[in-house]
Amino acid sequence: MRIAFQGEIGAYSEEAVQALVPDAEPVPMPTFEAAFEAVARGAEPCALVPIENSLFGSVHVNYDLLLEHRLWIAGEVQLRIKHHLLAPPGAALGTLRRVTSHPQALGQCRSYLRTTLPDAEVVPAYDTAGAAKQVAADADPTVAAIASRQAAAEYGLDILAAGIETNHQNYTRFLLLVADADAPRLELPEAPAKTSIVYTLRANVPGGLFKSLAVFALREIDLFKIESRPFIGRPGQYRFYLDLGGAAGDEPVRRALDHLQELTSSFQLLGSYPAWPTF
Amino acid sequence: MRIAFQGEIGAYSEEAVQALVPDAEPVPMPTFEAAFEAVARGAEPCALVPIENSLFGSVHVNYDLLLEHRLWIAGEVQLRIKHHLLAPPGAALGTLRRVTSHPQALGQCRSYLRTTLPDAEVVPAYDTAGAAKQVAADADPTVAAIASRQAAAEYGLDILAAGIETNHQNYTRFLLLVADADAPRLELPEAPAKTSIVYTLRANVPGGLFKSLAVFALREIDLFKIESRPFIGRPGQYRFYLDLGGAAGDEPVRRALDHLQELTSSFQLLGSYPAWPTF
Repeated sequence: MRIAFQGEIGAYSEEAVQALVPDAEPVPMPTFEAAFEAVARGAEPCALVPIENSLFGSVHVNYDLLLEHRLWIAGEVQLRIKHHLLAPPGAALGTLRRVTSHPQALGQCRSYLRTTLPDAEVVPAYDTAGAAKQVAADADPTVAAIASRQAAAEYGLDILAAGIETNHQNYTRFLLLVADADAPRLELPEAPAKTSIVYTLRANVPGGLFKSLAVFALREIDLFKIESRPFIGRPGQYRFYLDLGGAAGDEPVRRALDHLQELTSSFQLLGSYPAWPTF
Repeated sequence: MRIAFQGEIGAYSEEAVQALVPDAEPVPMPTFEAAFEAVARGAEPCALVPIENSLFGSVHVNYDLLLEHRLWIAGEVQLRIKHHLLAPPGAALGTLRRVTSHPQALGQCRSYLRTTLPDAEVVPAYDTAGAAKQVAADADPTVAAIASRQAAAEYGLDILAAGIETNHQNYTRFLLLVADADAPRLELPEAPAKTSIVYTLRANVPGGLFKSLAVFALREIDLFKIESRPFIGRPGQYRFYLDLGGAAGDEPVRRALDHLQELTSSFQLLGSYPAWPTF
């Protein structure tokens, strides 16, 4: 099965693809836009894109692309982001004089770098996988990259140190996207159902947010995510993103979503899908 | 007044500092950690840090640093992120062969680049201000950077094209942080009060989220932001971030926050501050 992802070969998104479907064929795309467009026009059957990170929040641009292209969420997977110190064969910790990676990755490994490689020059790069690719191309035993295990395998680099990030609570949640709800069902592991929606409230409903959540609370439906996103330039108007427990076709969820639409000026069902465990 | 910010001179954070306090002295810091630490230990009176972006979501790492260092929010400001095409004096659109910037900025200006400079090579850099600095240092009339107006002024570059981003809904919200609630009040414009809190719910309160919002709805207190953030590895447990209308000392808000703590296992008042308009 082909699964499109954004980034270079060796990116964390590719690692998420492999975790979800070990024999998938990951298809790299230069931008998120390209990945969404490929699925929307049927050039690729599906794409796996990051939607939120435990340290850096929701990727709103991908919510926007999801609404624009009207794709359907067919599943989700969480990946723990583990950073590794990668160097060309022949290098050792003692030979390193320079370490390069994306500034976020460098920041997350700051305490390891300070302790183990206090004299190494730290050089920012625009991408973790791109840094690994460059380190492999230069084959200089004094230069290492911080990137994924996938990048080490892809570019033939050695892992000099594994899991060097300070904060082990760095997880990224990815969504598996298909063209629409009627797309052929992918053969993937079973998991409890989750439903994702986005809505805006009618302007003249006092306490609208509270009432819109009552719709679920009164039916004892669990909420897994709630996030408000302001419409810039329209004070007091928000778009709400909600993830809830259960399938959209289940009777209480179906009734709650019907009830919700009595309060909304716009409503979209983004998908109803299995929520797989964390890898 | 000295105001610390993260980034190079010419970063968007520096532009936000200038927008808020035109005669402030912006103090660049290499990392967010350094900016928080400087305020916590009294080396700097305050810092201005990004907390959420309309396209890229909440900067959770800064919420974490806010909790870790127990700083106090003394104000907020929103800045519209405008991207400009900057080149060394003597360059013109016709001479350009290459454009460099952070991949997010390149992505946001993709449609301009496609139309106006279809043959230019697009080269990712790790930082917008860093790209401008490099372009100024090289002084090559075939190479331009995409960065802020501030960066143009700082590095002596010409603005060949202004506001070239496709999506004009790109805003970043910055928080002005001081050491604690008793820090001397800054002389800043008056604005309506806003209060920010973070809490976790007691484990055994059924419908806890709903009840915690009822505390405000029943007192007709406006909610400006609501966001859930899962505790990784503890399914069903969340930290909630809320921004609400009014000062923490106002009677209805004070009562609502008291009431809320009947339901929470942890609660922290992050600040009560003027919410300035958008720049």
